[in-house]
Amino acid sequence: MEIKVVKRIMEANEQHAEVVRRRLRESGVVALNLISAPGSGKTSLIEAAIRELKGRVRIGVIEGDPDTTRDAERIARLDVPVVQINTEGGCHLEATMVLRALEEIEVDNLQLLFIENVGNLVCPVVFDLGETYRVAVVSAAEGHDKPAKYPALFRTAQVTVLNKIDLMPYLDFDEEQFTADVRRLNPEIPILRVSCRTGEGVSEWTEWLLQRL
Amino acid sequence: MEIKVVKRIMEANEQHAEVVRRRLRESGVVALNLISAPGSGKTSLIEAAIRELKGRVRIGVIEGDPDTTRDAERIARLDVPVVQINTEGGCHLEATMVLRALEEIEVDNLQLLFIENVGNLVCPVVFDLGETYRVAVVSAAEGHDKPAKYPALFRTAQVTVLNKIDLMPYLDFDEEQFTADVRRLNPEIPILRVSCRTGEGVSEWTEWLLQRL
Repeated sequence: MEIKVVKRIMEANEQHAEVVRRRLRESGVVALNLISAPGSGKTSLIEAAIRELKGRVRIGVIEGDPDTTRDAERIARLDVPVVQINTEGGCHLEATMVLRALEEIEVDNLQLLFIENVGNLVCPVVFDLGETYRVAVVSAAEGHDKPAKYPALFRTAQVTVLNKIDLMPYLDFDEEQFTADVRRLNPEIPILRVSCRTGEGVSEWTEWLLQRL
Repeated sequence: MEIKVVKRIMEANEQHAEVVRRRLRESGVVALNLISAPGSGKTSLIEAAIRELKGRVRIGVIEGDPDTTRDAERIARLDVPVVQINTEGGCHLEATMVLRALEEIEVDNLQLLFIENVGNLVCPVVFDLGETYRVAVVSAAEGHDKPAKYPALFRTAQVTVLNKIDLMPYLDFDEEQFTADVRRLNPEIPILRVSCRTGEGVSEWTEWLLQRL
């Protein structure tokens, strides 16, 4: 019975994801589903992109969080439309939540939509949100073994962002191993090296975004 | 129907957790359930404790991982009994998995048992494993906002380890805010400041462990 219920949840999610995908296509919006562990810097990556692209690209943000509205408040300060999805303890976003948020955020007015998933390397990976691209984010401080330990994310993403590279000198991070593990799972995937703190690599991140539009 | 199934899963877990708790009590073993985000340094904290306490305390380790045996291999190098639970993509351990692992690890021969949960700040929190103590681990690199964003973990833990404090000078980590948020959720909880890399605070961590025996 458990298995049947899980199957039904996943099937319902697939259907909702298709509706999201169609809705985005009709509005001509590119949507990014950012997935990472807690504290990898997803919100900072979104903030950095908004700062660089504001005025040039119409950006909106959907923030998924298990409890608080902190990240949504950070984004709102940058004066772009933002909708908070509170998952009430839930460990991932689902397509039906995004579908409701699309109406609130007036998706027809946007070109680029960031969807910040709940910080988690396992659960969000199996839920298609109807996004155009999936972005895997890792902080260098988490260690180079994350792709090998959480392969499903890196296999299904279209880009990997290695964030907080300013910490590299103070870590035992084997970047060669990290890159080899990512490439083994996903041979063609771009790996962007970024530090939102120093600004290094931010222009490569925004360049990658602009090329998707 | 989904709600009923979830309720049944949780009730079954509670029953298994009680069996684990009884089994630990009979063997006189103190078990710690380590919960954190991926890459916070749970395995390093266990390694550090083993290095300090080996010869004095009979230690065993249960390693929970969604996919690989990497962490179990790291522990096995220190020549203590270790059992790997592969959750096959699952985002948390359950008491029934621990119950099976207890037999494999010959729990009667141990005094201290580390249970390293799957790296995740949401799902493991609601599954009682029958542990004696719950340990919340945060890496300073994840940011000071983690207790506020994931309150359930800090509310239910008996100790908080703030790890990777050697990175503090290179982070915008507001430790006063972090401590205030933890204390608001759990007024009496000890907060141990540790760097497994430099060794700072490791003796406070092992001292806390010894006082539990």
